[in-house]
Amino acid sequence: MSESCSSCAAAGSCNTESCSSAPQLTKAQKASNVKKVIAVMSGKGGVGKSSVTSMLAVSLMRQGYKVGVLDSDITGPSIPKIFGIKERAGASQGGIIAPTSRGGIKIMSLNLMIENEDDPVILRGPLITQVVNQFWTDVIWGQLDYLLIDMPPGTGDVAITIFQSLPINGVVMVTSPQALANMVVRKAIKMVRNYEPPIYGLIENMAYVQCPDCNKKIEVFGKPQGEAEAKRSSLPFLGALPLDPVLATLSDEGKIEDYQSPEFDQIALNLAEQIKQGNENIFA
Amino acid sequence: MSESCSSCAAAGSCNTESCSSAPQLTKAQKASNVKKVIAVMSGKGGVGKSSVTSMLAVSLMRQGYKVGVLDSDITGPSIPKIFGIKERAGASQGGIIAPTSRGGIKIMSLNLMIENEDDPVILRGPLITQVVNQFWTDVIWGQLDYLLIDMPPGTGDVAITIFQSLPINGVVMVTSPQALANMVVRKAIKMVRNYEPPIYGLIENMAYVQCPDCNKKIEVFGKPQGEAEAKRSSLPFLGALPLDPVLATLSDEGKIEDYQSPEFDQIALNLAEQIKQGNENIFA
Repeated sequence: MSESCSSCAAAGSCNTESCSSAPQLTKAQKASNVKKVIAVMSGKGGVGKSSVTSMLAVSLMRQGYKVGVLDSDITGPSIPKIFGIKERAGASQGGIIAPTSRGGIKIMSLNLMIENEDDPVILRGPLITQVVNQFWTDVIWGQLDYLLIDMPPGTGDVAITIFQSLPINGVVMVTSPQALANMVVRKAIKMVRNYEPPIYGLIENMAYVQCPDCNKKIEVFGKPQGEAEAKRSSLPFLGALPLDPVLATLSDEGKIEDYQSPEFDQIALNLAEQIKQGNENIFA
Repeated sequence: MSESCSSCAAAGSCNTESCSSAPQLTKAQKASNVKKVIAVMSGKGGVGKSSVTSMLAVSLMRQGYKVGVLDSDITGPSIPKIFGIKERAGASQGGIIAPTSRGGIKIMSLNLMIENEDDPVILRGPLITQVVNQFWTDVIWGQLDYLLIDMPPGTGDVAITIFQSLPINGVVMVTSPQALANMVVRKAIKMVRNYEPPIYGLIENMAYVQCPDCNKKIEVFGKPQGEAEAKRSSLPFLGALPLDPVLATLSDEGKIEDYQSPEFDQIALNLAEQIKQGNENIFA
């Protein structure tokens, strides 16, 4: 039973196929079956949403899942570059064909539809949200275990549209150690709690830099506070990640799929546990 | 002669006061005289626009100028926290009264209008741009030498509105060493070039971290490339800034006005030179 049926008097006895209230699926949607949609969000820009989204996609792919990434940051898209995708998105009668990374991750981003990756997309909210909606309705995602959504900064148009229109199963929150970042991330957490999806937990990115010469852990954005911050917002703490120059370099080279991070592997396990428990709402 | 007069047939012989085409000024605008409006932008989130805006405001204040900061990042406002402002914005018959920092910088931000600093602002584009416009038209800025605008990430609603509706004199671009960031910043540069304001130059933030133990300069986001990037976009390079834990801590404590940075002092001088030369358009 779809969510829209739950308030219908005939629920349970109807024939969904012939129901006039049932949402009309596009050709692309009929050709797709996405099992779980997870949004990666922070509210704040530059804390590493795109890195976390990409690492999570790679981690799930390595575990044998079929994965897609929907880059909903229309005016500042990072995903294609991180995965080194030069191919443009294609089109067929059935919908938009998303390019695939070397490892087999399906990717859709505005930067796969424009000629030069650094051409600006100067669009106002209604058009931007239309693009995001189309990435959901018109892309032939096919059979996917996980579709990850890389969210833009802010709690404006795109975030509102995604939580109102897309069937998000849960949200991963990303922050950095600055109190300033945490303040903005709390805005995002409060926003999500106005909608249905549970928040699986909080990841603290850029927690420290390790000096390659003397191994000192330098807390560049101040003392890590992710665990306390998660507690404050009654969220599971999924783990902390260092600020790693290797990740920056591999991302710039489009080789995120070659990146190894024991810290992230642990975070992915913690997240899988939260998803499996399915008890996310007890934290809300 | 105002900009709107330049295309008028009666330009030069008219009485602006009685001209029906002349923009209607609000009470707050009549009570204000802002000499220069500078936008600090990057397109990318988290590269330090708010830090640079704040450091620039402090630097100008120290030089004896009267300075204001308009925080146009409505859904992710950082400025009040960086300056430690707890006071709310006031209202009078003449308009909105902006709080003042300890050092005397006038500040307007959405976070000065809501009860809790971490309450989300869940607004779509049209309302967000209306707020930004009101921060320009309805705040009693008074006599200012410089009004700095801290821009949100992206080239969407707020950026479009600011370049279409506010009398921006010039733009300061901020980037970080990642090729990924530079790609997005180039989008912003191309966007600005669709409008009138010149770009004064490019600042590379977070260029390196200095290890407090062994003094090694760690290039956490990869090799600094600000100078090459500025050249590529035919922009003056204003300088590079380290990722400084002291700045992060002072920003979290609301004490940006206590921060000293010889690197930034030099950048401020370079910027002043660009503004003074008034030859910004030769780079476009």
